[in-house]
Amino acid sequence: MVGEILKRIRENKPLVHHITNYVTVNECANITLFTGALPVMAHAEEEVEDMVKFASALVLNIGTLDPRQIDAMIKAGKKANELGIPVVLDPVGAGATSLRTESAKKILDEVKITVIKGNSAEIGILAGMGGEIKGVEAVGKHDNILEAAKSLAKRYGTVVVVTGKEDIVTDGEKVAFVLNGHEYMGRIVGTGCMSASVVGAFVGVEKDYMKAAVSAMSFFGIAGEIAASNVQGPSSFKNAFMDAVFNLTPEEADSREKIRWGE
Amino acid sequence: MVGEILKRIRENKPLVHHITNYVTVNECANITLFTGALPVMAHAEEEVEDMVKFASALVLNIGTLDPRQIDAMIKAGKKANELGIPVVLDPVGAGATSLRTESAKKILDEVKITVIKGNSAEIGILAGMGGEIKGVEAVGKHDNILEAAKSLAKRYGTVVVVTGKEDIVTDGEKVAFVLNGHEYMGRIVGTGCMSASVVGAFVGVEKDYMKAAVSAMSFFGIAGEIAASNVQGPSSFKNAFMDAVFNLTPEEADSREKIRWGE
Amino acid sequence: MVGEILKRIRENKPLVHHITNYVTVNECANITLFTGALPVMAHAEEEVEDMVKFASALVLNIGTLDPRQIDAMIKAGKKANELGIPVVLDPVGAGATSLRTESAKKILDEVKITVIKGNSAEIGILAGMGGEIKGVEAVGKHDNILEAAKSLAKRYGTVVVVTGKEDIVTDGEKVAFVLNGHEYMGRIVGTGCMSASVVGAFVGVEKDYMKAAVSAMSFFGIAGEIAASNVQGPSSFKNAFMDAVFNLTPEEADSREKIRWGE
Repeated sequence: MVGEILKRIRENKPLVHHITNYVTVNECANITLFTGALPVMAHAEEEVEDMVKFASALVLNIGTLDPRQIDAMIKAGKKANELGIPVVLDPVGAGATSLRTESAKKILDEVKITVIKGNSAEIGILAGMGGEIKGVEAVGKHDNILEAAKSLAKRYGTVVVVTGKEDIVTDGEKVAFVLNGHEYMGRIVGTGCMSASVVGAFVGVEKDYMKAAVSAMSFFGIAGEIAASNVQGPSSFKNAFMDAVFNLTPEEADSREKIRWGE
Repeated sequence: MVGEILKRIRENKPLVHHITNYVTVNECANITLFTGALPVMAHAEEEVEDMVKFASALVLNIGTLDPRQIDAMIKAGKKANELGIPVVLDPVGAGATSLRTESAKKILDEVKITVIKGNSAEIGILAGMGGEIKGVEAVGKHDNILEAAKSLAKRYGTVVVVTGKEDIVTDGEKVAFVLNGHEYMGRIVGTGCMSASVVGAFVGVEKDYMKAAVSAMSFFGIAGEIAASNVQGPSSFKNAFMDAVFNLTPEEADSREKIRWGE
Repeated sequence: MVGEILKRIRENKPLVHHITNYVTVNECANITLFTGALPVMAHAEEEVEDMVKFASALVLNIGTLDPRQIDAMIKAGKKANELGIPVVLDPVGAGATSLRTESAKKILDEVKITVIKGNSAEIGILAGMGGEIKGVEAVGKHDNILEAAKSLAKRYGTVVVVTGKEDIVTDGEKVAFVLNGHEYMGRIVGTGCMSASVVGAFVGVEKDYMKAAVSAMSFFGIAGEIAASNVQGPSSFKNAFMDAVFNLTPEEADSREKIRWGE
């Protein structure tokens, strides 16, 4: 499943328009390119509608938000909705400050989101079922995270991805667990942001968004597994990981995907 | 030719003031430093005139522009003009949105630009001769790109660099083709931006701007060739490339430069 | 000494809130994480007070300042003061433009700073004893830098760190010289910024701020020494350095620390 979508990404090079934070923006651009898609980063209110028109997906990441950026995200999101372009939301740090929580909710209320991708704290908090966050990192274990994800997915009619040891993907009814990945992925800054970019590339070519999100997370995790085999530390892991994303073939992706469908 | 200018960069450490995008800003700063110059990034309208005074070159890159940033660019550019400091323009994404196209033209109208460096779509579009761009990447082949580059160079009395398999450099009369480079260079985000920074370092010490731009592109391409010899993927290529820029000696640069002068 | 504090960082994972520049922000986040702390970057005036509440340290870096960012820094800094959270100031480029010099002074006047970390030019200029800066790099040798550092430390009741071949750390009375480090560290962009992040992690768990700052600089320098042993250039050095920060154990840190106490 993963390989077939990956192949389409590499053939069609979907443009993934990002409005994202300035911490991991370079990694997001590179991972998009290495996956096989084309990244573009554009945040000015004066051009986001113009830019998103040509995009196959829009990724909104509130990692270093400010109110003007949120306005641009909503403007771009509404235009994407109008044109049927899928929109991925990464609600980085929702729960850490009220600006982040309220901004994520405002985006969800005003833009039809295709996929929300967050850690267990962000998803739990947006679902109204609590969660503990330190800066932008989920701390502690969330007991009802599957329930929270399903509830959030149903409320907004969206696919929800919860990253973790096992990633959870749900549209409120179906559930899939992605078992690919490696603990090293949590040791570098930007893994979460990059995974949202990869989801953007996948939804850019596959209209079954549940399938696209599951495949994106599996692809991403496989690259992490490959990279982890021979590294000296987190920085060399990051380089190996980026290389692995580029080098991963559709065939190898198919043979390594580990997805468990549940409910 | 290349080696002699490179030597001067390493002796004089020209300060290259950038007003640039937040996607590749770190790469631009590092490549400037590794080439042998000193980078400084400063964008606030309140300080750009103060900062550019001490610079040997100013690099303006509209990769993640907004209207206030354009105002700061024009302010800095006018001060640079007043002081005889060369100004490099990288019109990233011109043609992709009207904000980008109009901003690039506004800068060209209000600031005397020393070197414009763009891909074939950006240059074609600014020359009024068309071009196809997807996000910030030129797609398709531009038939009259040499003519477009010459026309643009003449109109603004500037040197134009068109990046591609063979880089074209022209002042509207003379033309040079830089044959150095490697296809891997197109596989990472930021190559274009970094090349403008390197042009900044070269025009910072060499007042024959045509010669400086040709040499910069040759130097940049040689580093790419060296780096491509032994890499596992685009991220390891990027590291090898950055190392190669630092390690490239004037002698090796001279022995490897491949420049064809034409018309 | 260094190892014991490092151990506490890795156990407690202090949150280090940064308001910093967009050039080296990614490195600052990663180095904080690799040291063992948790980074968060948040600059919007609307959320900085909310965010800093949960932090163990606040790092203010004016590398790409604008007036609105300075307002947010002061807001966050005052809240940190109110809550007894230590504040590290990196006055990047003070002396290069009046905006930078005045902003650094304004922050020092309005926020009680725990540690000021700068190069010899920045510290000399803030002390009112002169200094020569080119962009953001100190040039030339500052004759009375120890005196300048002591004077600045006394005036603001703070610890001052002056980076250089030997780092100087002083609270205005006591002085320590940190002899760890490697010249390669000056060949990449962001070393100074990263060192301030590491100081943030150390003051986040150790209330003797002089001891914390000395230990942070020693830890940072040791990682540089380890990384320098086997590299091909500055970019591979950077990766090796980041890996070394992560891999450095408390025991190895203790065995390699080189600190000379003076006056």
